[in-house]
Amino acid sequence: MSNEFIVKGITKAKLPSDYGSTGFKMFKGSILNSVEVAYETWGKLSVNNDNVILLFTGLSPSSHAASSDKNNEKGWWEFMIGPNKPIDTKKYYVVCVNSLGSCFGSTSPASVNKETGDVYGLNFPELSIEDIAKAGHSVLQTLGIDYAHTVMGPSMGGMTALAYALLYPNSLSNLVVISAAARALPFTISIRSLQRELIRSDPLWNEGIYDKETAPLNGMKLARKLGLMSYRAANEWRERFNRARLPKSENKKMFDIEFEVENYLNHNSKKFVSMFDPNCYLYLSRAMDLFDVAEHGGTVNAGLAKIHTKKNLIIGVESDILFPIDQQEELAEGFKKAKKNFKFEKLKSIQGHDSFLVDEKNFSKVIYNFFND
Amino acid sequence: MSNEFIVKGITKAKLPSDYGSTGFKMFKGSILNSVEVAYETWGKLSVNNDNVILLFTGLSPSSHAASSDKNNEKGWWEFMIGPNKPIDTKKYYVVCVNSLGSCFGSTSPASVNKETGDVYGLNFPELSIEDIAKAGHSVLQTLGIDYAHTVMGPSMGGMTALAYALLYPNSLSNLVVISAAARALPFTISIRSLQRELIRSDPLWNEGIYDKETAPLNGMKLARKLGLMSYRAANEWRERFNRARLPKSENKKMFDIEFEVENYLNHNSKKFVSMFDPNCYLYLSRAMDLFDVAEHGGTVNAGLAKIHTKKNLIIGVESDILFPIDQQEELAEGFKKAKKNFKFEKLKSIQGHDSFLVDEKNFSKVIYNFFND
Repeated sequence: MSNEFIVKGITKAKLPSDYGSTGFKMFKGSILNSVEVAYETWGKLSVNNDNVILLFTGLSPSSHAASSDKNNEKGWWEFMIGPNKPIDTKKYYVVCVNSLGSCFGSTSPASVNKETGDVYGLNFPELSIEDIAKAGHSVLQTLGIDYAHTVMGPSMGGMTALAYALLYPNSLSNLVVISAAARALPFTISIRSLQRELIRSDPLWNEGIYDKETAPLNGMKLARKLGLMSYRAANEWRERFNRARLPKSENKKMFDIEFEVENYLNHNSKKFVSMFDPNCYLYLSRAMDLFDVAEHGGTVNAGLAKIHTKKNLIIGVESDILFPIDQQEELAEGFKKAKKNFKFEKLKSIQGHDSFLVDEKNFSKVIYNFFND
Repeated sequence: MSNEFIVKGITKAKLPSDYGSTGFKMFKGSILNSVEVAYETWGKLSVNNDNVILLFTGLSPSSHAASSDKNNEKGWWEFMIGPNKPIDTKKYYVVCVNSLGSCFGSTSPASVNKETGDVYGLNFPELSIEDIAKAGHSVLQTLGIDYAHTVMGPSMGGMTALAYALLYPNSLSNLVVISAAARALPFTISIRSLQRELIRSDPLWNEGIYDKETAPLNGMKLARKLGLMSYRAANEWRERFNRARLPKSENKKMFDIEFEVENYLNHNSKKFVSMFDPNCYLYLSRAMDLFDVAEHGGTVNAGLAKIHTKKNLIIGVESDILFPIDQQEELAEGFKKAKKNFKFEKLKSIQGHDSFLVDEKNFSKVIYNFFND
């Protein structure tokens, strides 16, 4: 049995037949057979196929970006996608793909390798952000779509959108990159490297061989806590928790949690661990460290110069410590040097890297403006 | 056998006899018996006893702040302390104490409880920053010193210096608080809380019962890595490591380290784990979360108003993410509101919280100026 998680309402695209005989050729050269990619759609495809928005996600969400007839649960970008919302599904046909390598329906380390009958685990080949972009491109092909009006994504999804524009420069009109970067900084790499080490230090990880009942949940919890710290911002937490204490407990043991912020981290990390596969986390996390626009041209600027979208929007948040604002400035500078048409929105949101998920007001406005200028 | 570490050249002060019959009364009410505090000194005490600088340390160093006749190894603040150095031992008699609760000669969770013959471990009572200040005060008493020219410290040592000025307002003339705060922010608490959880998640921690041969070294290594991230700054690492890779290895396994920054973290954390006791780390770390100047007056400002030193110097670093510059500004504001004589030095050092250890140029200058104005 696979270690995948079930998401209601997804469709699984089997990759186009031109890959059929040789399998899916990955960016670093490995071949992956029988690849499926999960996706969801909202809105209707126009007669001219000219209203497609392809959306890539951050590391942890599924393709369920918004509620739909097939799945009425709220999605991870519920405020952004829907009729009359900033990404207006009355006008656009939105396709959100579950990243290749993620555990929500796409082929991943949590899937069963049909050739062996076992879960891939560490037998899954090294994953690149480019592979996620390629898998998204293949989904559009299975839908008979050659051209996207806009390719976009936040965080890892922003890196994937950049990879898409580099790999398929003639297949998209516009690009929106949110809280992402041309490549990871050493500080960001160190956070992710430690997260992976926390998972791998859990004896239950067992070199990637476990099933859902024996998964390394403590390692995942610790990694998620570190994730939450890097996704948020010190000043937001100061406003939200300050030094608020938990009620005194009679049975309190030495080093039990005492502060509200510790309780928040406990609660949120526990919620997450049973919702994501540890091996998938490792692969996707490493893919973000390795991605580098400079591999597509020698330097970051040379890579960016190869992108020839009509309109580009780069959004960054000043309180982001994981993808600091300098990195979105670097993207903007690159587009400027290459004389591209771009807009750089530097937002004052206080919620750090996660602002795109929670600062509805600021993010709705800049995304709305992009599609209505 | 204790879990303490041996430091050459220290002296151990047995606490003054006025505590003798009842033991050392801790800030939160517990009694600790047979308390010893390790310290080192540099320079000569003046005839009038008016040239004493009492130095408290950050969480991890010993009292060996600088080399001396008794121990010629370099100390943690070698560039700062010595003849003709910013803290000039030709003029001043410098006393650096190993914090109560630390494993370098002072009574701590790593010490043997003389009543039971066992290492304290978690039977050590809850530790407060105020206890460390009180232990430092007792050291001066054993030396026959009633009054310090200056009490100072960086990081946890800065908090301890504040606690000292609050507990013994008539026992010091001047105060120097470096990269510290009136109280910890929730973001800082969350980093330290996770560090403690990493140690406690190591099966070898065993609820604090281990000896040096069976200590939870992996948990310590993980905690130290997170520490290093919080002590340094993203931009420094960008300049220092950027995305430099390690040489390709034939035997590389999936998720082995690939970047120089990962190698740096491995190297530095491995070096540390065999040099500090895990239980001591837990106690000192928690003490920093709990310290709050507001407990000495109702609010931070009311607490600071009770300090009546003649001169106060507050130093902060703009790139510090553990004790962000706002927190030193808060201290400065408090002194300003209370109409105290203070100077606030906001340094542009790029090395984050650890700048006081490495930015010799900027730190030497402001400390020199303080003692020579």
